[in-house]
Amino acid sequence: MTTAHQAPGETRPGGRTARTRRAVLTAVSEELDDGGFAALTMERVAQRSGVHLATLYRRWRSVDKLVCELLTEMSNDIPLPDTGSLPGDLRALADAIERFYGSAGPRRVLEAVVAAAARDPQAASALRTFFDERLTLAGAMVRRAVARRELPPDTDPKAVVAALGAPFYYRILIERRPVEPGLGASAATAVWAAARAGAYALGEHDGAPGRED
Amino acid sequence: MTTAHQAPGETRPGGRTARTRRAVLTAVSEELDDGGFAALTMERVAQRSGVHLATLYRRWRSVDKLVCELLTEMSNDIPLPDTGSLPGDLRALADAIERFYGSAGPRRVLEAVVAAAARDPQAASALRTFFDERLTLAGAMVRRAVARRELPPDTDPKAVVAALGAPFYYRILIERRPVEPGLGASAATAVWAAARAGAYALGEHDGAPGRED
Repeated sequence: MTTAHQAPGETRPGGRTARTRRAVLTAVSEELDDGGFAALTMERVAQRSGVHLATLYRRWRSVDKLVCELLTEMSNDIPLPDTGSLPGDLRALADAIERFYGSAGPRRVLEAVVAAAARDPQAASALRTFFDERLTLAGAMVRRAVARRELPPDTDPKAVVAALGAPFYYRILIERRPVEPGLGASAATAVWAAARAGAYALGEHDGAPGRED
Repeated sequence: MTTAHQAPGETRPGGRTARTRRAVLTAVSEELDDGGFAALTMERVAQRSGVHLATLYRRWRSVDKLVCELLTEMSNDIPLPDTGSLPGDLRALADAIERFYGSAGPRRVLEAVVAAAARDPQAASALRTFFDERLTLAGAMVRRAVARRELPPDTDPKAVVAALGAPFYYRILIERRPVEPGLGASAATAVWAAARAGAYALGEHDGAPGRED
């Protein structure tokens, strides 16, 4: 995570706003490490970050918003690969997700975000928007694969990417076991075989998963 | 859901205990429908169920425990099929999960349970135990498939079943969109193709997903 340290010359308001945001998100992450989501309060975040409570409430309104923004920020560490083949891209992305959720910090943030979404419709909507954008962006690897004739043209890009991520979220949120090495390889093998079998064909049935709606 | 109505002749203590439990779980379900997990309190459950608050606390300790027990109870409505072929069993189970989570009630309960697990280690452990048991039970369909030579003998039964469920939980908790008709068919097609491709081979790599540990 970044720190709230003020870089030399970084004095314009934009810089100050960015530094405040970094300080706050770092504090949220550290609070989650220490006490978990149950103990997370705006007061603790204000104390740890040194940012005024009023500023926190004005800019983020609730801890639910804060954890959503933290997940968005952290997930930017997962790069979208372009290896030249879909099996290569699937494996690279799955391995990146495996590494990301292989450490406890991101798992805790994910659990906090899903808990926040369960109690706050605005957090739920933020989560929906964030993952929809990720699925659309990552769908580029599937569109390239269709152009390369690796997959049939009626393949649903978002459904393929959703299927690649699903085992990780099932492991963390449902099985509640650590993400172990091998889950990424298994997910990539599974999605490649399933996509070629037509499991993610667009509009094959009403409400096909992940259809572009 | 069952109701708290007293069946004639059902007067022994066990019967009374069972009726209390039904009344409480029905009240929890109705409270989730009305106000969601954020508004769920032991006091509201006591009021709606007519069960003494002290009894609630003594038997369930928290709303987190209550929602976990409710999910366990409701999930018993998902039968484990035995159609004679693995593709048939996968499709039947996937369609049952699709029907179950196709209505808003079970989705709300699932969200509440995952939120409860994020803030209460005991709820998390209850959730882990419950799904581990479900995976082991449903794994029977995979063991039958291996016996029928539909799948290689090194197939991990729990990994196959986990992969069948994963898309539903991703849809509900991460994409936060309704479970639409077709998701079950897609999941069944995907898992059958992936299992035959060896995506769920036991011990193929360290910490293979869902390995029997």
